[in-house]
Amino acid sequence: MTTAPMFEDWMKSVQVAMEQALLQYLPSVQQTPERLHEAMHYAVLDGGKRVRPLLVHAAGALFDADETELARAAVAVEMIHAYSLVHDDMPCMDDDALRRGKPTVHVKYDEACALLVGDALQSQAFDVLADGRLEPARQLSMVRLLAKASGSLGMCGGQAIDLASVGLTLSLEELEQMHTLKTGALLRVSVLLGALAGKQLSENEIAALDQYSSAIGLAFQVVDDVLDATADSATLGKTAGKDAADNKPTYVSILGLAQSQALAEKLRMEAHRALEQFGDKARRLRELADLIVQRKA
Amino acid sequence: MTTAPMFEDWMKSVQVAMEQALLQYLPSVQQTPERLHEAMHYAVLDGGKRVRPLLVHAAGALFDADETELARAAVAVEMIHAYSLVHDDMPCMDDDALRRGKPTVHVKYDEACALLVGDALQSQAFDVLADGRLEPARQLSMVRLLAKASGSLGMCGGQAIDLASVGLTLSLEELEQMHTLKTGALLRVSVLLGALAGKQLSENEIAALDQYSSAIGLAFQVVDDVLDATADSATLGKTAGKDAADNKPTYVSILGLAQSQALAEKLRMEAHRALEQFGDKARRLRELADLIVQRKA
Repeated sequence: MTTAPMFEDWMKSVQVAMEQALLQYLPSVQQTPERLHEAMHYAVLDGGKRVRPLLVHAAGALFDADETELARAAVAVEMIHAYSLVHDDMPCMDDDALRRGKPTVHVKYDEACALLVGDALQSQAFDVLADGRLEPARQLSMVRLLAKASGSLGMCGGQAIDLASVGLTLSLEELEQMHTLKTGALLRVSVLLGALAGKQLSENEIAALDQYSSAIGLAFQVVDDVLDATADSATLGKTAGKDAADNKPTYVSILGLAQSQALAEKLRMEAHRALEQFGDKARRLRELADLIVQRKA
Repeated sequence: MTTAPMFEDWMKSVQVAMEQALLQYLPSVQQTPERLHEAMHYAVLDGGKRVRPLLVHAAGALFDADETELARAAVAVEMIHAYSLVHDDMPCMDDDALRRGKPTVHVKYDEACALLVGDALQSQAFDVLADGRLEPARQLSMVRLLAKASGSLGMCGGQAIDLASVGLTLSLEELEQMHTLKTGALLRVSVLLGALAGKQLSENEIAALDQYSSAIGLAFQVVDDVLDATADSATLGKTAGKDAADNKPTYVSILGLAQSQALAEKLRMEAHRALEQFGDKARRLRELADLIVQRKA
């Protein structure tokens, strides 16, 4: 029996494999329209920690899912995430010039190009996922899950609530609901798609994974707010202190810094508890919960 | 044996049923976020001739497809079409204030809302189509066809080429390639999804339907250009003369008016010829080719 690699090494290997997989599933920059395809590559490649792909692979480990199908699901989710960042950064939304330490797509290219990059990445995500080799009925249910997580009752809906909440005083419950949609839905679907790449899930398994997902989803946002209030732009690779400057409600503005940090730790423990039934196979999911709470950027 | 209804009556009945189906598959305006859902309804309902849904239903008649599954495919295609109009009208793209005789979504709501309406409609389209009741492998292939028709090698790619061509002198071939992607891809997939709702297609059937689709796709654009040059805004329900004002290459600017009209008629005949093998069952597809070429708006 071989020893499992250390978390850092596992993470690195997923990130490297992910870069290859994304390149494989993106249209070639040699194909017409070349500039659009180049901008799609710019938006997707060489970026971020790949938290969602890591979740896909970590959840896939629960049921020994096929690596190719895991990579496919991870690519689909990451393309949705990347498109949402491109649109979110546009002047009519958050108007951000810096993302992952590089000029945002509408700055590097132009606004019309950024709009089309996002639109085309969304289509590409569904094309990739629908081309999977799993049992067709299960593959279809994965497409539906991704569509629901992306749409007006998921990520897009969360962004709409976020925009509408600028300058308002939100209660903790309202803030939570917003984030459950805005970032939570895509984190949850990452976990579910990874597990579904392994096998059809029982209701009990879905419930446990949902408990885990909702804990890390909220933790992710609480830590984002803490970092936005405490880290600098160079460390974050994006503009720090932007929430306060934009007068956006955050966990830090509602709970204060110390209580926000305590909440993140409490959510980390909840995530661990949700995984108990899966034993050692859930090791990577546990380590990811730790990463999400303990990250510095 | 009952006589088939007249084309006008058939068209009207599809349009009325379509309005119901769109309403059924859109998220309710009572659901959070209400404003986003209201704007999605505004973008989709009560609009246009529903050419793509008519094509879905007309192609479905070839193989006696189930009405519910045809409506589902028609809704999915129309949601993609509606999202593309919302994004296309935005200031960073065509910057149009009038669409189907009403203020465009970013004018009626705001730009951020228009961006999210388009994004959410695209997700919704895939959710609807992936929830179909056909044989799962065939349903998956329909999802892939819609994704490809929508993405950077289809509609989005055509829009990118269109944007890049403003102020340039395009050859007839380049103009044709642009339109084949920009509008042709979605018209083609409308025909294919309608037929696939009936049965798995043979290569020979796909080839005939593709010949039909490419003829009506080009005819559609040639007639659009003719109308843009000859009709007024009130008749069109959108700003007339915009192509010339924007210095965009069109069939009229390259071929002149008379030759453009002759080309449209030639393409109409090509569309009819492509349908010969299908006999009387292709009646609606023939009538739609006539409509596309002979319309006044």
